[in-house]
Amino acid sequence: MSENAAPVVPPDSPTLVDDHLVEAVVDLVEAGHRGHVLNLVADLRPADLAALLQHLPADLARVVFRWLPEEVTSRALPELESAERVDLLDGLSTPELVALIDPLASDDQADVLADVDVTQAEDVLVQLEDAVDIEALLSYGEDTAGGLMATEVVAVPLTATVAEATEAVRSNADAVDPVFAVYAVDEENKLAGVIPLKRLLLSPADTPVHEVCEGDAVSVEPDLDQEEVARIMERYDLVALPVVSAGGRLLGRITIDDVMNVIREEAEEDLQRAVGITGEEELSSSIFAVSRGRLVWLLLGLCGAYVSGLVIVGFEEALTIAPVLALFIPIVMAMAGNAGIQSSAIAVQGLASGDLWRSDLARRIGKELGVALLNGVVLAVALAGIVVLSGFGDDTARLALTAAIALMIVIVLSTLVGATVPLALNRIGIDPALAMGPFITVSNDILGLTVFFLVATLLYL
Amino acid sequence: MSENAAPVVPPDSPTLVDDHLVEAVVDLVEAGHRGHVLNLVADLRPADLAALLQHLPADLARVVFRWLPEEVTSRALPELESAERVDLLDGLSTPELVALIDPLASDDQADVLADVDVTQAEDVLVQLEDAVDIEALLSYGEDTAGGLMATEVVAVPLTATVAEATEAVRSNADAVDPVFAVYAVDEENKLAGVIPLKRLLLSPADTPVHEVCEGDAVSVEPDLDQEEVARIMERYDLVALPVVSAGGRLLGRITIDDVMNVIREEAEEDLQRAVGITGEEELSSSIFAVSRGRLVWLLLGLCGAYVSGLVIVGFEEALTIAPVLALFIPIVMAMAGNAGIQSSAIAVQGLASGDLWRSDLARRIGKELGVALLNGVVLAVALAGIVVLSGFGDDTARLALTAAIALMIVIVLSTLVGATVPLALNRIGIDPALAMGPFITVSNDILGLTVFFLVATLLYL
Repeated sequence: MSENAAPVVPPDSPTLVDDHLVEAVVDLVEAGHRGHVLNLVADLRPADLAALLQHLPADLARVVFRWLPEEVTSRALPELESAERVDLLDGLSTPELVALIDPLASDDQADVLADVDVTQAEDVLVQLEDAVDIEALLSYGEDTAGGLMATEVVAVPLTATVAEATEAVRSNADAVDPVFAVYAVDEENKLAGVIPLKRLLLSPADTPVHEVCEGDAVSVEPDLDQEEVARIMERYDLVALPVVSAGGRLLGRITIDDVMNVIREEAEEDLQRAVGITGEEELSSSIFAVSRGRLVWLLLGLCGAYVSGLVIVGFEEALTIAPVLALFIPIVMAMAGNAGIQSSAIAVQGLASGDLWRSDLARRIGKELGVALLNGVVLAVALAGIVVLSGFGDDTARLALTAAIALMIVIVLSTLVGATVPLALNRIGIDPALAMGPFITVSNDILGLTVFFLVATLLYL
Repeated sequence: MSENAAPVVPPDSPTLVDDHLVEAVVDLVEAGHRGHVLNLVADLRPADLAALLQHLPADLARVVFRWLPEEVTSRALPELESAERVDLLDGLSTPELVALIDPLASDDQADVLADVDVTQAEDVLVQLEDAVDIEALLSYGEDTAGGLMATEVVAVPLTATVAEATEAVRSNADAVDPVFAVYAVDEENKLAGVIPLKRLLLSPADTPVHEVCEGDAVSVEPDLDQEEVARIMERYDLVALPVVSAGGRLLGRITIDDVMNVIREEAEEDLQRAVGITGEEELSSSIFAVSRGRLVWLLLGLCGAYVSGLVIVGFEEALTIAPVLALFIPIVMAMAGNAGIQSSAIAVQGLASGDLWRSDLARRIGKELGVALLNGVVLAVALAGIVVLSGFGDDTARLALTAAIALMIVIVLSTLVGATVPLALNRIGIDPALAMGPFITVSNDILGLTVFFLVATLLYL
């Protein structure tokens, strides 16, 4: 491209980082053109630089990371996935790490520090300016409000004026970014109210903040689960949420960007649970980590399926008398597993979103029963139709009737199992998402095959 | 509780609305105590009132909705689920609807209007103050940036001063809430820059806005898909995103709270796809809607499973010679289905989050092959062990070896099918999430059973 040609993608386009840029950077890095690479990535936003680094081959990413100025790589660090961060930071000296980590907000500092080699992390920590804050943050559980919050906030005494609050925003402008609100605290540093930035902007300078602050602010304590934090911010449309100690003292704030990651992560985790993946599989996870995460349920599934197999072998006599029954084994398994996983997924989603309450349970089960009966009838008729169309001689009618009745019962039972198991697990304090996926599929396979062969033995043999 | 007793739950607690409140309201409504109900719900935030209405029996919810003052129910309307809104608004007069809808932000007005009876909606629309804006919003696709945006923004000419911009925030204080930034536009109303509220607060009153505004603001066009909108706001940590016409003219803005809903909805949709639910099943969906959404894949699954059944019947001779082979039918089906759905879910998630690029594909498939080989070996050994422990007379060793080899091949093939089908679908422009769940399960069942019986015929018979 000549220097005069207008770029096809404007500089502010979110698609600026793509396969073509990755390829161009690979070529330039391999040719050792440091200057060109720096020019090419100079205007990238931190998140885009992180995306670029993540899509470069690992060795080249390390080269680029070390070529770039510290203030640029520092900003990109919080945007990287943990596995990549470990890789890129590996081998850096303690002073280099301190220089990279110090400019970040406290929550990001804690996150990045968690990816530094343990033996080095302590040396780095003590040299950070906010070492005390970071240490406190590292003491909270990763999946709690404390683990999400940053300690940097703009806070003023209740007795301050609007002008003083504005000045506080100014003096914290670098450390607290973005600012959404100023927090008013009493003499014991207890959160007393919230002053949205808009109100600060529109109020006369000499107004006392206690006259302009909102007193009924929502706040959370640091040990609250991050899913609950996300639900609260979503529910009340908050962009920042103050975190206070059990005694009400202001500890920090959680901003919406951190919570969006939580929502996506939790949703990905639920989906992974539903397909039988334990742990958290990421694109960057190692083959061994991926294998381990998938094997747990596959091995349990293997044992469960072996039991299903024993059920079939247990009805060997029936199969010897009427080998055609084998035709229905995959049908019963597919339908029992599928109907169960459908109803379990809906129950799990209702519980996860907080929309499903105990007072709804009776209505909920009643509805699932209605759906199961309706779907059972439709599927039974469809299966009977298929059997009649296929034709099995004189026995066709009896076979069709047997299959239809058995399938009907299987659908109703497996739908109800799927709908109730997550509710029961939730009741006794176990993550209901565990009930989705392989667990329901395998137990419904066993249940379905048993019911099918019992019905077939009664009606057909 | 006596009037002097302190409430157990403080008034700002997010758990204020729970089963107990619902029960109390039910009792009071049934007893006709309108005054008590109004007192009880007086301090609820709009989202909490909506939650309460959603958990009341439908007839009582309608009573409470009509008891409450218009300004209270108006604010709760956007927080309700669509099905509930339809129910609650049904039967209201046109003037009542206008009074409820007029105070809302334009994006919420459009959403609520979509739930008003069609014949009445037009009468309501023409009587709304912002009828022209709303009509424009209704013309955008529901799942696009245009469908998400509100037309209310604070915009000032590039030539304005900071004082004038502050005045613009003041005069729009009711219509635009919350305000995160003021948009600077040129003489053609084209977006020229963004002034974050913090900068407005900290800049001298007589500064021209063109000196304080950020020129490289990210913006989107109204036809952009909402998933892409969510990805951009998430990536760049934005709380508000301006929407501009193809020519660059400022049309409105999207705020983060709308996008959080999008992320949750899309995640729920992906999970529902994974378990074979078409459409969008909500807790409030009718039995018929739920049944329809689940039946599509169940019926397709029935047909697919019938093909699996034909495969088994096709190998009837093998089963007659060695009935023990039936034992492995559920195992092969469970393992093929499960391994395939695991790898497909990871591919779908990578594509959905935008983290999986074309340049990663070779690496991706290579890794899945590695995982499949590793898991295949472990599962094959486990199965051989189970067979040996169960003991099948003289044939035990040969049976164990046959089962192990067959399972190994099945795991590798089904993992690769699961990993590649979503990528292929994505390539040809079909939603890759369709590949998860029943599709992969059913096709892998057929593939797995065929491979198993072929291997068994070759090695065992």
